[in-house]
Amino acid sequence: MTDWSAHYARRVARMDSAEVRELLALLGRGDLTSFAGGIPDPSLFPSDAIAQAYARILDDPRLAAVALQYSVPEGYLPLRRWLAEDMRRRGVSCTADNIVITNGSQQGLDFIGKLFISPGETVLVSRPTFLGALQAFNAYEPRYDDLPGPGSNRTVASYAASGPERPKFGYVMPEFENPTGRTLTHADRQRLLGFAAALDIPLVEDSPYETLRYSGETPPALLSLAAEQAGGIDNCRVIYLGTFSKSIAPAFRIGWVVAPRQVIERLVLIKQASDIQVSTINQMVLHDIAAVVVASQAERVRPVYRARRDAMLAALHRHMPPGVTWTEPEGGFFIWMTLPAHVDTTRLLATVVAEAKVAFVPGTAFHADRSGRHTLRLSFSLTDPAAIDSGIARLAVEVRQAINS
Amino acid sequence: MTDWSAHYARRVARMDSAEVRELLALLGRGDLTSFAGGIPDPSLFPSDAIAQAYARILDDPRLAAVALQYSVPEGYLPLRRWLAEDMRRRGVSCTADNIVITNGSQQGLDFIGKLFISPGETVLVSRPTFLGALQAFNAYEPRYDDLPGPGSNRTVASYAASGPERPKFGYVMPEFENPTGRTLTHADRQRLLGFAAALDIPLVEDSPYETLRYSGETPPALLSLAAEQAGGIDNCRVIYLGTFSKSIAPAFRIGWVVAPRQVIERLVLIKQASDIQVSTINQMVLHDIAAVVVASQAERVRPVYRARRDAMLAALHRHMPPGVTWTEPEGGFFIWMTLPAHVDTTRLLATVVAEAKVAFVPGTAFHADRSGRHTLRLSFSLTDPAAIDSGIARLAVEVRQAINS
Repeated sequence: MTDWSAHYARRVARMDSAEVRELLALLGRGDLTSFAGGIPDPSLFPSDAIAQAYARILDDPRLAAVALQYSVPEGYLPLRRWLAEDMRRRGVSCTADNIVITNGSQQGLDFIGKLFISPGETVLVSRPTFLGALQAFNAYEPRYDDLPGPGSNRTVASYAASGPERPKFGYVMPEFENPTGRTLTHADRQRLLGFAAALDIPLVEDSPYETLRYSGETPPALLSLAAEQAGGIDNCRVIYLGTFSKSIAPAFRIGWVVAPRQVIERLVLIKQASDIQVSTINQMVLHDIAAVVVASQAERVRPVYRARRDAMLAALHRHMPPGVTWTEPEGGFFIWMTLPAHVDTTRLLATVVAEAKVAFVPGTAFHADRSGRHTLRLSFSLTDPAAIDSGIARLAVEVRQAINS
Repeated sequence: MTDWSAHYARRVARMDSAEVRELLALLGRGDLTSFAGGIPDPSLFPSDAIAQAYARILDDPRLAAVALQYSVPEGYLPLRRWLAEDMRRRGVSCTADNIVITNGSQQGLDFIGKLFISPGETVLVSRPTFLGALQAFNAYEPRYDDLPGPGSNRTVASYAASGPERPKFGYVMPEFENPTGRTLTHADRQRLLGFAAALDIPLVEDSPYETLRYSGETPPALLSLAAEQAGGIDNCRVIYLGTFSKSIAPAFRIGWVVAPRQVIERLVLIKQASDIQVSTINQMVLHDIAAVVVASQAERVRPVYRARRDAMLAALHRHMPPGVTWTEPEGGFFIWMTLPAHVDTTRLLATVVAEAKVAFVPGTAFHADRSGRHTLRLSFSLTDPAAIDSGIARLAVEVRQAINS
């Protein structure tokens, strides 16, 4: 058989498959209470509104001819106009020229890697950070260093010490972070912008869960604060990623990037060269329903997910032994758990799946340097409160055993 | 204003915008007879079948929950199974494990660049070749050299002379090539496979137009010949790209790669990291209709496009002055024209748009080395026979003037 590895590009060595396969394998097991996935509950999808929109567009011959044809790489103009208007909710003043439509925000991450990272250059990420961001950036062979978060003692000078070249950008998910559930306060955001300005680097703000807030109030988007300081979005240096995957449904594969016009022009060239455009008909369907459905869907799903979050937090308080700590997210899908330092959660997972019929994601997956061995991520998005309580109870039995062994 | 260029990756210098913007600008002009685009006629799209499929899937709550959710990166299994079966038409015996679904074949090209090309490595392409392939590969910073075609006098030894490292792969569109309209004969294909074996490199076979044959017979796919020689697809070294963009409609953004299983496993990791998956609902819709529509659509559109091809060939014979030659394609959308060496078609385009209200694409766009200044591409896909004749007549007036000036 051919040895293909001799033919591949150098970057292929950075494409690790372990976590992905693990997650996909766990998702398919019917007897498992999975706290591993991070996906929306399909019973909550607005399928009637979606079905009606496809029918409305395809039953009109003039619209159908547009909907089934190639379209421009930057995305369907009415959808970009709607998104520009909707960004006011996030405190951002922009136009359709500040927006490019992507295949979900994952593709936004890939394109940002393509635009900014040459091999060996440094990207700053939180520790832990979003696994999908690491996977997207890895193809461009960066080195990673820490993006300072709340409580960090890294100084700006310490980055200069680690090499002569400044990092290319910092990546952060400011609301209900995947995997930690953490939200940056207004003061955290100002500090982060100050840090980026001192280092002279752009920030990438990833905001997939912003419509899923169950308590508290969302501070202004980093993009909003940066644009205000710079006198307008085209002078600032924050690149914002949004998606319909959580606010409507994931299967459209539609997200967007909001950024200074210069950056959008480059991303449009990258879009054209990478896959030409996002599905025209899917963009038209989302434009057709977004004005009504984004708001109504948020109202509809928040109480359901809030109850699941509350059930998981209550179950953790009820069942977990001393020495275990966890975050208390104000929204999104995730709770981050820290165990005593001697517990290896990758080994724990094998036992937990076998004995407790529960799954989670070990924390190392979310660390660029593979640290965080005693941490793990729990998702409450797919499980009803009663099953959450019994699943966490079974998990706690194994956690207690692992701590004491 | 921020100087973003100082922040970008090195590869950005390779992302040229000129051709793209030119093409997009021309497409939007209503008073123009455009022979520039290479897109299907939207009046021929099977929109009723498509509308019914969306309704069938979304009106069934069980199917809708699947259709709107995340799905696996390799693609919807029933669609991959159907494609594996359909590849028998091309003489290829394979299974669903030999297939990954991509956002059109353009994304297949991007992923092949990501998988194989490290900066400075060599890719072999025809001269001229598909502009989209050059755009996709450029992001990975290759050097280009010629893939030998019919009549080439390049020897295998001449590649060794140009550097110590073997090229990474050869890229070819064997049927109705964009831009030349050329089809490789059975003997051409055998020679190309022999050349690739001698150089020890894989071949990438791009076949977007294969259902659009208007005369003659299609030789076996390179993948079919290579698999036969190697004793099965998993031992061969051809990577095949297909798409529904021409056989059904472009707006779904659904194509596929057929390759040895080892290569598909890598491409699936790349898909996951790049944008997770292709739209689930679009994949389900295409699976629902493909078995009927691919065949019926081919029957329906071939006579229309055949008449347009014939009209353009007749018009060229009727109107073009001596010294101008062109290809006679057996299918697809394109005719390639060669003018006397002193005519610059980029300059000609400006005159032709202004004076003759006709557009084409100058040939340099399709040359990795920007040669081919006296060539151009014509598309007959969007224009009815009468308008083709008068458009070519007006073009011929300008061509005659350019030759004589």
